[in-house]
Amino acid sequence: MDKHIAPVALEKAYRLINHGPTVLVSSGHAGVSNVMAAAWCCALDFAPPKLTVVIDKATRTRALVENSGKFVIQVPTVAQLQLTHDVGSKSLLQEPDKLERAGVELFHIDGYETPFVAGCSAWLACRLIPEPHNQQAYDLFIGEVVGAWSDTRVFRDGHWHFEDASPELGSLHYIAGGNFYAIGQVLQANTDK
Amino acid sequence: MDKHIAPVALEKAYRLINHGPTVLVSSGHAGVSNVMAAAWCCALDFAPPKLTVVIDKATRTRALVENSGKFVIQVPTVAQLQLTHDVGSKSLLQEPDKLERAGVELFHIDGYETPFVAGCSAWLACRLIPEPHNQQAYDLFIGEVVGAWSDTRVFRDGHWHFEDASPELGSLHYIAGGNFYAIGQVLQANTDK
Repeated sequence: MDKHIAPVALEKAYRLINHGPTVLVSSGHAGVSNVMAAAWCCALDFAPPKLTVVIDKATRTRALVENSGKFVIQVPTVAQLQLTHDVGSKSLLQEPDKLERAGVELFHIDGYETPFVAGCSAWLACRLIPEPHNQQAYDLFIGEVVGAWSDTRVFRDGHWHFEDASPELGSLHYIAGGNFYAIGQVLQANTDK
Repeated sequence: MDKHIAPVALEKAYRLINHGPTVLVSSGHAGVSNVMAAAWCCALDFAPPKLTVVIDKATRTRALVENSGKFVIQVPTVAQLQLTHDVGSKSLLQEPDKLERAGVELFHIDGYETPFVAGCSAWLACRLIPEPHNQQAYDLFIGEVVGAWSDTRVFRDGHWHFEDASPELGSLHYIAGGNFYAIGQVLQANTDK
């Protein structure tokens, strides 16, 4: 595991996606690994931490998540702009070498079967909470976060430090048509009011 | 209605929240109006457009949404940093004058009962799709977007233009403890690959 990667306390895990980044969803089952991009991923609870992610019926990821009951949500960086777009616009069903062509490097963490994507700023290992009606009617999947990690150059001590880190480590926020925004400047509201 | 506000085609409405901004949820029923902040709001479908939002059982908003079957999601701006924090950290249940103290100005749009919050960059009027299990087990509410509008200074022709607009019109992305990030620079992936 990269020397910059460290665990994040589960009660702080929601902060890794609270600012609404576009994420990568990795999954694996029976020897097949896949990675897709998802703009529709959102925190759902603090403790135990849960999140939602929309996984379309047309994706290869969907069966991998349903069959393994596991997936990993990761926060890609500005340096991974093209990778994020490519894994979000191509399907393993049509392009079996999709991951190689997009330049995705996978790694493993002891105790977790699902592959993780190298080079991201945060990782949330999830256990699927089966909700068949949500999955069928809305393509909506709920996961409980069972492990979390960050790149300590940009998230440490329970806080993002985008303002002190390389712009290449910023998060990506997708709109449409290949257009993303990077996360911007930090703003502090007065909390004493 | 402010002269800068114009309707957004429903098939483009998801783009108003696709980049993961913290939103304001407004609601009204039987003469009571309220506004809360929500970091946990996410697009769910394109057509008809749907979204999810987490509304805790401790909020006043929850009964207003359940009883009226309606709510409005709006995207607050950098200029509304303190307002967004204040409506997210105080409850109408304890502070009946919460909206006045936070400086919230409401307005109405013909044909919609729910009040809208002035000064935001985008508005999505929603009809609640009742899902009692999700609401009870996860505080998760699903809405169908039935009307959408934007401030054309920052969203027009189906696209955000944060990069050309005043920084005061940028979106807010909440983390914790009064800490937000503004949306940052635009990035374009190569879509020809």
